[in-house]
Amino acid sequence: MTQQKAPVLAPEPDVVQWFNSDAPVTLAGLRGKVVVLHAFQMLCPGCVSKALPQMQKVHEVFPEEHVAVVGLHTVFEHHDAMTPVSLEAFIHEYRLTHPIGVDRPGEGDVFPSTMRTYGFRGTPSLVLIDRRGFIRHHSFGAVEDLVLGATIANIAAEGP
Amino acid sequence: MTQQKAPVLAPEPDVVQWFNSDAPVTLAGLRGKVVVLHAFQMLCPGCVSKALPQMQKVHEVFPEEHVAVVGLHTVFEHHDAMTPVSLEAFIHEYRLTHPIGVDRPGEGDVFPSTMRTYGFRGTPSLVLIDRRGFIRHHSFGAVEDLVLGATIANIAAEGP
Amino acid sequence: MTQQKAPVLAPEPDVVQWFNSDAPVTLAGLRGKVVVLHAFQMLCPGCVSKALPQMQKVHEVFPEEHVAVVGLHTVFEHHDAMTPVSLEAFIHEYRLTHPIGVDRPGEGDVFPSTMRTYGFRGTPSLVLIDRRGFIRHHSFGAVEDLVLGATIANIAAEGP
Amino acid sequence: MTQQKAPVLAPEPDVVQWFNSDAPVTLAGLRGKVVVLHAFQMLCPGCVSKALPQMQKVHEVFPEEHVAVVGLHTVFEHHDAMTPVSLEAFIHEYRLTHPIGVDRPGEGDVFPSTMRTYGFRGTPSLVLIDRRGFIRHHSFGAVEDLVLGATIANIAAEGP
Repeated sequence: MTQQKAPVLAPEPDVVQWFNSDAPVTLAGLRGKVVVLHAFQMLCPGCVSKALPQMQKVHEVFPEEHVAVVGLHTVFEHHDAMTPVSLEAFIHEYRLTHPIGVDRPGEGDVFPSTMRTYGFRGTPSLVLIDRRGFIRHHSFGAVEDLVLGATIANIAAEGP
Repeated sequence: MTQQKAPVLAPEPDVVQWFNSDAPVTLAGLRGKVVVLHAFQMLCPGCVSKALPQMQKVHEVFPEEHVAVVGLHTVFEHHDAMTPVSLEAFIHEYRLTHPIGVDRPGEGDVFPSTMRTYGFRGTPSLVLIDRRGFIRHHSFGAVEDLVLGATIANIAAEGP
Repeated sequence: MTQQKAPVLAPEPDVVQWFNSDAPVTLAGLRGKVVVLHAFQMLCPGCVSKALPQMQKVHEVFPEEHVAVVGLHTVFEHHDAMTPVSLEAFIHEYRLTHPIGVDRPGEGDVFPSTMRTYGFRGTPSLVLIDRRGFIRHHSFGAVEDLVLGATIANIAAEGP
Repeated sequence: MTQQKAPVLAPEPDVVQWFNSDAPVTLAGLRGKVVVLHAFQMLCPGCVSKALPQMQKVHEVFPEEHVAVVGLHTVFEHHDAMTPVSLEAFIHEYRLTHPIGVDRPGEGDVFPSTMRTYGFRGTPSLVLIDRRGFIRHHSFGAVEDLVLGATIANIAAEGP
C-alpha cells in the first residue's frame, strides 16, 4: 500500500443515484471520519468474490462514528448490462448495507465521471481518505485484510 | 444425492435464446451423452460462488463426446435486473463457455417455463440425465465435487 | 491423471504398524474392492491441508463394500520427528478414521520400504488399484475432487 | 476482541528452548515494541490451518521495529508426540521464521508453565502486549485478519 506524497483533498464523487442512504452522501458531510471509498462493477468477478465482501466487513467491524464505507458503481464496460435496476437487485441479493452511489455516466465517454476524476485504473479500486478529507491511499486490485485493517486504524488513530 | 425411482424421460427445456451455441440445444440432440443440466440466476450468490464454477469445471474435465453441460437461466425474481443483455455480459466476464439457455418467462407467472416443468425449487438446481434421456438425479443446492464426479461417471459408465 | 499401460499387480505394502485397524491390512484381503492407496507424511503441509482431508472424504463418501481407503505413512525425512507415537496423536487430532500403516523404515536408506517398491516421488502420492488388484493410477501431488471422484467411480464400475 | 480493564504487566514466558532466535527472547528486551504473543500446539488443526499462517503473516507485514511476533509451543496433551525434535521439523516444513519458544513442561502438571501463568484456555491463544509491556488483549480461538490488523495498529499508534 502506498501513500500519496503531496496532500490532495479528495474530490466529491459525482453520483446520480444512491442506494442504502436516504440522502446524498458527501465527503464534506463525512469530515471527521476516515472514509473508505471503493469503486466496483457488479459484473467484475474480483469485486464480487473479494473486494465487496471485504468492504462490507469493514463496514461491520469498524465503528461508524470513526469509519465510513462508501461504494461507487463505476461502470466502464457492458453499460446496458449494469444499469441501476440490476445494481439494486445485486445489492439486495449480496446483502450489502453500506451506501453505494452510481457514478455519473460519461457523455461520449465510456468512463463515468468520478472514475475519470480519481483516475481509477479499473475495478476494484480503493481510496482511503483521512478525517480532514485528504487522500491517503489509492490502489487498484486486492488488498490483504491484515494490511487494510492496520492502514485504516493508523489513519483513524491520527485523530481529527 | 437421490435418484428418482420411476424412469422419467427428461422434458425438453423451453428456451428463448441460447448463448455459447450457434444452434438451439435439445436433449434429443444430445441422446447418447450424459447431460448435466443446471439451473441458475446470475444474481444468485450461491450460483456465482459455487455452482457455476463447478459446472464450468465439469464442462472442462469430462470429454464432450460423453458428457454435455447445459445451463438454464431460470429467472424467477428481479426479472428486470437479469435480462438477457445482462446475462450476456455476465457469461463473458465469468468466462463461461458451455451452452446456456434463457428459460422462457412465464405469462402471468413469476416462474419461467422450464423451471415450472421440472419443478425446480430454486437456484442452483441440478439434473443429471442418462444417455437414453432419463432423469437420474434432481437436486437443489450444493453438491460436493467428489460426489458429483462419481455420480456422473457412474451414469456414463452404464453405456448407451 | 494417467494410467499405466501394462497391467501391473499392486505389490503388498510393507508395514510395521497399523492404526485404525485391528488386523493388518492386505491388498489380497481387499481383492474385489477398488483400493485408494495414498502415501503421506504428517509434517508435509500439502498432505495436511489437501490430500488427507480428501482421502478421509473419499473414505466417508464411497460405500466401503466397493472402495477401501488405505493410508501409508512413508517417512523419508525428519525421521525422528515423525515417529509412530507422533503419528498416533496426529491421526487422533485430525480425526482420520481410515486404516493407516507405518511404512517399514529402510535399513541404511532414508526411503522406507513400500515407498521404494512403488517408486513414490514424494508426498502426497496416490495409487488406485482395481478390484482384481492391478494398478490403474499412480500420481504425485494434488488431484481435483471432481476428477478423483470420476476416476474411482470408473474403476469401480468395471465390476469384478 | 476485548481489552483488560486493569493494566497488567505481561509476565515473562518461561521457555526451555528457542527456535528462530540465537538468544533467549524476553519481553523486557522487546519493550518499546508491540508484542504479538501466541500459543499453539503443532498437532492442533486450528493452529496449523489458521492461527500459524496468520501469525507468520503478521510477522511479515508489520515492520519489526514496531511489532514483534513471538510464538509459544504450549504442549498440554500428547506430550510424547510433540517434543522439541518434532517441533523443529514442523517449524522447518511450515516455513515459520519468527521466534518460537518451548513452554517449560509442568512438573506433575499436564499444563506447561507459561500456559499456567497466563491462564490460556487452549490453543490457539493470542496476547497483545503494548510498548510499555502491558497486556491489552487476551483471547482464545480465531481472530479475523481485519480486526487483528486494526487492533495491532491501534496499540502501535499509541507510541511509547
